Amino acid sequence: MEHVDTLICARWILPIEPAGEVLERHCVAIRQGRIVALLPIDQAAERYSADRRIERPSHVLLPGLVNAHTHGAMTLLRGAVEAAAYAEWTQQLQRLEQRWMDAEYVRDGAELAIADMLTSGTTCFGDLHPFPEATAHAAAAAGMRACIGLPLLDRPGLWAGSTDEYFVKGLQLHDEYRDDPLITTALAPYAHWAVSDETLKRVQRTADELELPVIMHVNEHRESALSAGERSFDRLHRLGLLSPLLMAVHVVAVQDAELDLAAREGVSIAHCPQSNLKLGCGVSPASAFIARQANLAIGTAGAAGNNDMSLLDELRTAALLARGLQPSATLPITAHQWLRAATLNGARALGLGDVIGSIAPDKWADLCCIDLNRAHTSPVHDVAAQIVYAASRDQVSDVWVAGRALLTDHQLTRLDLDDILRRAERWRQRIHGE
Amino acid sequence: MEHVDTLICARWILPIEPAGEVLERHCVAIRQGRIVALLPIDQAAERYSADRRIERPSHVLLPGLVNAHTHGAMTLLRGAVEAAAYAEWTQQLQRLEQRWMDAEYVRDGAELAIADMLTSGTTCFGDLHPFPEATAHAAAAAGMRACIGLPLLDRPGLWAGSTDEYFVKGLQLHDEYRDDPLITTALAPYAHWAVSDETLKRVQRTADELELPVIMHVNEHRESALSAGERSFDRLHRLGLLSPLLMAVHVVAVQDAELDLAAREGVSIAHCPQSNLKLGCGVSPASAFIARQANLAIGTAGAAGNNDMSLLDELRTAALLARGLQPSATLPITAHQWLRAATLNGARALGLGDVIGSIAPDKWADLCCIDLNRAHTSPVHDVAAQIVYAASRDQVSDVWVAGRALLTDHQLTRLDLDDILRRAERWRQRIHGE
Repeated sequence: MEHVDTLICARWILPIEPAGEVLERHCVAIRQGRIVALLPIDQAAERYSADRRIERPSHVLLPGLVNAHTHGAMTLLRGAVEAAAYAEWTQQLQRLEQRWMDAEYVRDGAELAIADMLTSGTTCFGDLHPFPEATAHAAAAAGMRACIGLPLLDRPGLWAGSTDEYFVKGLQLHDEYRDDPLITTALAPYAHWAVSDETLKRVQRTADELELPVIMHVNEHRESALSAGERSFDRLHRLGLLSPLLMAVHVVAVQDAELDLAAREGVSIAHCPQSNLKLGCGVSPASAFIARQANLAIGTAGAAGNNDMSLLDELRTAALLARGLQPSATLPITAHQWLRAATLNGARALGLGDVIGSIAPDKWADLCCIDLNRAHTSPVHDVAAQIVYAASRDQVSDVWVAGRALLTDHQLTRLDLDDILRRAERWRQRIHGE
Repeated sequence: MEHVDTLICARWILPIEPAGEVLERHCVAIRQGRIVALLPIDQAAERYSADRRIERPSHVLLPGLVNAHTHGAMTLLRGAVEAAAYAEWTQQLQRLEQRWMDAEYVRDGAELAIADMLTSGTTCFGDLHPFPEATAHAAAAAGMRACIGLPLLDRPGLWAGSTDEYFVKGLQLHDEYRDDPLITTALAPYAHWAVSDETLKRVQRTADELELPVIMHVNEHRESALSAGERSFDRLHRLGLLSPLLMAVHVVAVQDAELDLAAREGVSIAHCPQSNLKLGCGVSPASAFIARQANLAIGTAGAAGNNDMSLLDELRTAALLARGLQPSATLPITAHQWLRAATLNGARALGLGDVIGSIAPDKWADLCCIDLNRAHTSPVHDVAAQIVYAASRDQVSDVWVAGRALLTDHQLTRLDLDDILRRAERWRQRIHGE
């Protein structure tokens, strides 16, 4: 008998790779935070002795969801700016952030985001926000995995006053988490209008040198597809940024040739359909990108937009839009493909494809468990379709990050949710002058 | 002190009328199943003595949601036909129903649908399915309100062999429930391709005579917009069916002039955006209909399509699509307007606008309560927006129909959920030959 820390036995397991596989009555064996094996329940009992054996008899176990694009701290402003489309929404939001945001605000907002995400099955997120050290610290303290975007802009902001200061503070944060098991960093030159060619080249050199992902909003709406008369994909190509290191976020206002180019260069796209719809930007041609065999990930963007951070919800919107608006001559994108987008593709986009995103030996045990024993997800003719088209966030019963249970029986194990909600309410009162 | 049966006191109440109103710390007083008064908590204590006082300190109380269009029994086939667009999906679904459907099947499927709907805040649904007596009986036994469509077709089916038999059986069912407090009926000439001009005229005469709503799929997809070379709205107009009694379901492939006509004649539309997207039919121009001051209701259609019956989820999809795809020169449709669509407009479409759909004295106490005290719906800058854009179905804590609690603290009070799930699973096994 081989010893392991934990055996998780589930009615169904979706390992994500091989594609489309549904295992029935299997176990995942975990030792020191990593997956040791994936095998039938009967065999597991013979092969492993475990400190903890967890039975989930009506549940699906799958890799933890990866929210490829977030602005965590925006949770504090969810619902604060409703009756406005993109340009006005941005303006009003920035005015509120300019007035209220500091490191404490970002910490409180990020913790609320982390609670929102863990309770809906997300185990890793790719963030982009000022005061990234506050978000990094909140994630590390919560035991959640995160890829923290280091803002690198030419515009002075609340966090840094100059391009150089952004780079200095950003790289300092990178160094601080260099050996952290949970926190990684990415370079985040916000969007084309925020950075000069020179700064983008500096980003690219730094990314190559440190092998860091680059996160950037690209073509979120029609107006942002051009920079000084040049299409932004052309500009990024000219400056050498189109590569597998780049995660282009949103990509709504895009031409076929640009999708060809992005796919050819190995760029990942973070598809955020609810944010794009709610802010009136439109619909990203996600199916067309998938049809090019390219890496499509899913993100919620900031909760001030759309207004929550459930990746299950986002996934459903993505899948429905693709079926309704982008019928193609080829077969429709399957529920399994969408689950891959929300797990392994997200991990790859954040530079973590080798260590998380699928259930495979040696990967970190970042997992989530969804209970299908509900009126609205029974009977189960098709496990993947029930998750994508019907399951609700409360069906997420458990979440593990590196083998550590952060959600058990629907309850957060390490976070004080009441305290997080109290702090969020205090910010609301302050903002409304109550 | 006046005596009432129940006082429900909530943090927020959305009465739906007057439009956009949000009451804080108010109570609803209920006697003999009907709303007596809506007033501040302080005043309620002085004016009413109540048998039961229910405190919901972090909740929104609003009218129960009205799912204007369902095929309840299709829950048994959710996920059974996934990789197919409309034409093929219909074919495969009909083949399965032809093989398995009888009164017992419809009863079991309808009970599963009722459990799905009650746990997500729906208190009334408008159904259309063969064996309507099984659905009517399931709703009545559950204590749920329903408007049961009586199928009236020229095509022989499992339930009736001829047009006359449809009418005879349908009107017999209508008579059976004539004085029922919960169950009403509607005439349901399925879709234009299923009925001759003569039958449609007979439907219209019967509807006028009995003052019954007429439920009909209209222009669900491009092919169905034409009947024998005539646009189906023109045909319905020629035959006198365009009136406030008609609820046209789906209405995706529609021209501006047809929307004008439908709005002018007082037709209601049941908007089912998830079904339309998932089956590749497209997007109904819901905003354009609302802009015409017309009555837009929301429905989930059958769960074999989309794959659940949560109206909250459907509402979110409707609202996101309208903001992303149908930006208009006028202001965007507000969250309050969407909540009205999912309550009062649905009630009106089913002929129940005078008795349910808003919180007003003398209306039935059909209510639902949503707990916003969650990470993903805090802080609450905007109550209505949090419900439409973030709340999940599990936040529905309570549901009352005619003052009777059918869901209390998230638990069904009258239905045996385990038994319902067991029967659903048995159907799945039978269908798969297990």
